[in-house]
Amino acid sequence: MKNKTLSNRIANELMEFIREGDFSVGEKLPNEYELSSLLGVSRNTIREALRSLASRNIIDIRQGAGTFISQKKGVADDPLGFSFIEDRRKLTQDLMQIRCIIEPQIAALAAQNATLHDIEILGNLCDELEALIRKRQDFTQKDMDFHTQLATCSQNIVMSNLIPVICEGITVFSSIVAESEFEQTIKSHREIFHAVHERRAADAQQAMLFHLLYNRNRFIQEKNQ
Amino acid sequence: MKNKTLSNRIANELMEFIREGDFSVGEKLPNEYELSSLLGVSRNTIREALRSLASRNIIDIRQGAGTFISQKKGVADDPLGFSFIEDRRKLTQDLMQIRCIIEPQIAALAAQNATLHDIEILGNLCDELEALIRKRQDFTQKDMDFHTQLATCSQNIVMSNLIPVICEGITVFSSIVAESEFEQTIKSHREIFHAVHERRAADAQQAMLFHLLYNRNRFIQEKNQ
Repeated sequence: MKNKTLSNRIANELMEFIREGDFSVGEKLPNEYELSSLLGVSRNTIREALRSLASRNIIDIRQGAGTFISQKKGVADDPLGFSFIEDRRKLTQDLMQIRCIIEPQIAALAAQNATLHDIEILGNLCDELEALIRKRQDFTQKDMDFHTQLATCSQNIVMSNLIPVICEGITVFSSIVAESEFEQTIKSHREIFHAVHERRAADAQQAMLFHLLYNRNRFIQEKNQ
Repeated sequence: MKNKTLSNRIANELMEFIREGDFSVGEKLPNEYELSSLLGVSRNTIREALRSLASRNIIDIRQGAGTFISQKKGVADDPLGFSFIEDRRKLTQDLMQIRCIIEPQIAALAAQNATLHDIEILGNLCDELEALIRKRQDFTQKDMDFHTQLATCSQNIVMSNLIPVICEGITVFSSIVAESEFEQTIKSHREIFHAVHERRAADAQQAMLFHLLYNRNRFIQEKNQ
């Protein structure tokens, strides 16, 4: 921390300012000029500090429009440094292992803690996911949204930040999906949703574990081919 | 992705360059001048791109000395946006919940997968931790090192990036530690270490779960006082 530059220090002060100012996602920050007189530093320093907050996904700088609180809530791009890991297959395996550890517990917590509104959103995602699969369209993003919403349902704030990171890290490991696998994917998500909806925590946990192990086994089979 | 600026694009190209160049931690990168002619853009653009990689902890820029591959291996500062979460008590609780889910499994994997060298390092950390506790000195960092090393022992590369993030997020919740609690902390870590050392995965898992629940209960008791 010895070599902390001025702009780093100002970036921290801006963070403090944002936290205390209770800004909500998408809200606009004061402009560079105002911030510069507020913190008593040059506009250049403010600009550099803002850029550093932008690179941490705390704010969005939109050319000509101003500076806004980012939707990414400060979760960095590739926050855990996956792009630094060279062995992609090992990375995928390790991420799957982590999902098998965390997500069944999330499903149980979701069944126990979800609000009615949370469950409604989960149900809609389940429908949309099913529609995409039936049309044989790319459902990767919707799948991730389902798992992220389940994390939100758990009411553990860290989980809802962590799950997208872990899901995103798993590169799509197969473009060839058998017809039976499409059906199984639909069925698994439905089962998880129904268990959450009916507050059956133990069933939600096991349905999730089955879903993840099914995918892991597909991955292992492909590897051995 | 539409508004990707030039320096963002160059930052990605630099990432690619680093990955393909097989640079190791601490290794020096070519200087701005060389990078600028290598990628065919101005030194200003290179400088901005380098700054963005530095803010993502991929490289360290040392004034006057050059640019080096960072020891942080691209794991961002506050990667999951904890500083954005206002309710610190809820954050601590949620992080504890995650630790209770993940770390017992890590301990089991560690007992199963650790190399002899991994175990030796774990043993040393255990000794150092114990020495600090006996001298009643601050052992927060050493405690975190122990848990991180256990994650390394698991041979899951993502775990060893994730665990420090989760441990660090838990603010020290008590400065008053009873004498009996010091002893229990020493005992818990010893038990985990011995189980890993003797490849008793099930025991390692339970020792870790006990250790974490013990701390969680201390936290809950304080809350209710």
